[in-house]
Amino acid sequence: VRIELINIGTELMLGRAVNTHHAWLGRRLADDGRIVDRQVAVADDAPSIREAVLEGLRRAELVITTGGLGPTSDDLTRDLVAELLGRPLVEDASTRARIEAYFASRGRTMPLRVLTQARVPQGARVLPNRHGTAPGLAMQVAPGSFAAHGSWIILLPGPPRELHPMFEEEVRPLLRAEFAAPHPFYCVTLHTCGMGESWVEERLTPVLPRLVARGLEVGYCARTGEVDIRLSSSGSAAAVLVEEAEAAVRHCVGEHIYGSGDDSLESIVIRLAANRQSRIALAESCTGGYVAHRLTNVPGASEVFWGGWVTYDNSAKERELGVPPGILAEYGAVSAECARAMAEGALARSASEHALAITGIAGPAGGTAEKPVGTVHIALASKNAATCARRFFNPYDRETFKYVTSQQALDMLRRRLLGREGREPVG
Amino acid sequence: VRIELINIGTELMLGRAVNTHHAWLGRRLADDGRIVDRQVAVADDAPSIREAVLEGLRRAELVITTGGLGPTSDDLTRDLVAELLGRPLVEDASTRARIEAYFASRGRTMPLRVLTQARVPQGARVLPNRHGTAPGLAMQVAPGSFAAHGSWIILLPGPPRELHPMFEEEVRPLLRAEFAAPHPFYCVTLHTCGMGESWVEERLTPVLPRLVARGLEVGYCARTGEVDIRLSSSGSAAAVLVEEAEAAVRHCVGEHIYGSGDDSLESIVIRLAANRQSRIALAESCTGGYVAHRLTNVPGASEVFWGGWVTYDNSAKERELGVPPGILAEYGAVSAECARAMAEGALARSASEHALAITGIAGPAGGTAEKPVGTVHIALASKNAATCARRFFNPYDRETFKYVTSQQALDMLRRRLLGREGREPVG
Repeated sequence: VRIELINIGTELMLGRAVNTHHAWLGRRLADDGRIVDRQVAVADDAPSIREAVLEGLRRAELVITTGGLGPTSDDLTRDLVAELLGRPLVEDASTRARIEAYFASRGRTMPLRVLTQARVPQGARVLPNRHGTAPGLAMQVAPGSFAAHGSWIILLPGPPRELHPMFEEEVRPLLRAEFAAPHPFYCVTLHTCGMGESWVEERLTPVLPRLVARGLEVGYCARTGEVDIRLSSSGSAAAVLVEEAEAAVRHCVGEHIYGSGDDSLESIVIRLAANRQSRIALAESCTGGYVAHRLTNVPGASEVFWGGWVTYDNSAKERELGVPPGILAEYGAVSAECARAMAEGALARSASEHALAITGIAGPAGGTAEKPVGTVHIALASKNAATCARRFFNPYDRETFKYVTSQQALDMLRRRLLGREGREPVG
Repeated sequence: VRIELINIGTELMLGRAVNTHHAWLGRRLADDGRIVDRQVAVADDAPSIREAVLEGLRRAELVITTGGLGPTSDDLTRDLVAELLGRPLVEDASTRARIEAYFASRGRTMPLRVLTQARVPQGARVLPNRHGTAPGLAMQVAPGSFAAHGSWIILLPGPPRELHPMFEEEVRPLLRAEFAAPHPFYCVTLHTCGMGESWVEERLTPVLPRLVARGLEVGYCARTGEVDIRLSSSGSAAAVLVEEAEAAVRHCVGEHIYGSGDDSLESIVIRLAANRQSRIALAESCTGGYVAHRLTNVPGASEVFWGGWVTYDNSAKERELGVPPGILAEYGAVSAECARAMAEGALARSASEHALAITGIAGPAGGTAEKPVGTVHIALASKNAATCARRFFNPYDRETFKYVTSQQALDMLRRRLLGREGREPVG
């Protein structure tokens, strides 16, 4: 099945919004063995939408659009697709009732214009919207002038909170019922940190080519300080092949792999700490609460994460963590000594087994010749091990700085929880 | 000038990475009056890349690709485009020298495969890469079989840290030199919170249609609890028309507008507090450091943000903020009383004029009939005003919960800093 995704929205074309639908839908479709062949984005204007939909129907058996189903004057998708397919719009009584109930249950007055969303192309399958007012719509297009092979076109609303449950509850079952089961597709993504992209491939050269010859596909996705290794294959031998490849990759670069698939470094740390019944405290300066935010994004974090301090101001480091004024005066706030004192202060003041402390210069201002912007000290204090401190240099923009620094801090904690501190990152 | 953007990467199609290039490049191009007409994403496979590039050249005068220039075996863009355009690859001595210097300056051994990145299509303009090893490439394609009108094709590397400076330093000047100045394009985006999408348009109906008749374009982009209003126009009268529209919109819904353009609520709060020489402290429970993270994303936050506590565990609320055990026993941690005590404790313990406290139930677990998942209490204590507390209900997934809650908290602080607390958000 050839699949095209069309994301509609002027805000996307003007760069006023990031297209998160592509990744979200692409991932869920791929999990079912269906790969999006082409994704297209166009503005909320009639000729562009028409052209993209016609091209999609010509090439693909499944066309999914997002956006343009709302109640405002720039929402054109429903009307244009109805017109293209020669289906008049008719009011759908159940949708009208749902919209009225939506406003009634919230005690809010209903603006009349929202009822345009109850008008649907004749014969369309209506996909109810549990979190908003615009229903999704699914229509089959017979083979002919538009659709070379006969296609389905599915229109989904733009807000993620509406689209996500609608896809899970309505679209996935529809695809399973209407399309043949796809070839088995198997995909594993291994997340590494602390090693450059070329080195990853270099280290894997002895083992992967013979598996590629048997149908394995290998992809690399590099970010600052991290490389994802993607191993995939389709067909009946896919699972065995990908498992064999995963074992080979783990053998070559295992110490750099922190997780796979949807694992994040924070979810791994929470899981490891939960298994060991260890609790974690944080003392953050330059990361400004970002490590705490990442840990608390993981459901169940409250079992493991005791809490933390964001000691941005030096007076907070002294008052809240007991960093001796002498350390701040002699070594400065960005020093191994201060990081150690912060970590040990956090450990002593919290009910935790491990306390991670981070101090550095995020920039853009505040750097000196001796301590340029990007300088970071991270310390880890634990009840059952000596405090360690490491210096890093992350001379990036502010958000990349926070991200890379938080990865380094969480990886130090991961290695301690695993008892693998001897192995340092390379490359 | 018709512009197409082609984002190349299997990770995009499998939903393993979000396409941030589209928004980033789209925004910068639009700022110069050039609007991307169509964006396409395809996998790292030769037929898909070839088809997308050929279609782009047929339709557009400017085709920009991202991705596929790296050193690994799945990087195909450079070779395929060279082959399509009939240009042999030749080694570029300056690029080779740059790559060698890149590794030498980092004290790292250079894997030989990275030198494939020094091979460039004959006659291509090389765009140096200051943050990585793959140069960008720009080529003019004469009118003819491929390119209907004659086109430029510009190949950019995938990593944002490499692409962003290359676009600013190399591509923008190239576009200014090679393409006619575009029609003036003027765009203002106003950010509102606390008002539904249909109501925003309803309130603006008395003023906008007559401006639309004169060439104004209006767009709405709705997120949970927020609507962006985009006002744009091209041509010689664009700036005047958009300014007139902005004034009309501010007149109708001004109290809901917290900023415009690149303003974020956190940057507005930092700016307002800096102007008033006020300092801010935070006591976060359910947002887990996210508000601190948002504030510290703003350069210069250290002038305003004193620091904060992430008191996830109840013992942290007692020990660090002095919340009386009686309050926790009688009302529970998720209560107006606890939020007030946290805010007042944070104010008393910090060197700040305002302290914001947040306590609630992010879920998925932990809800009760009386306090379901999504219940939040936010309190704001200030040196010069009475403590206020408000209850919200944000029954969303964990990350949306944190985002919406942080918006409500920052908006409370914004209104206090502005002295506009009387005006409450409406439905």
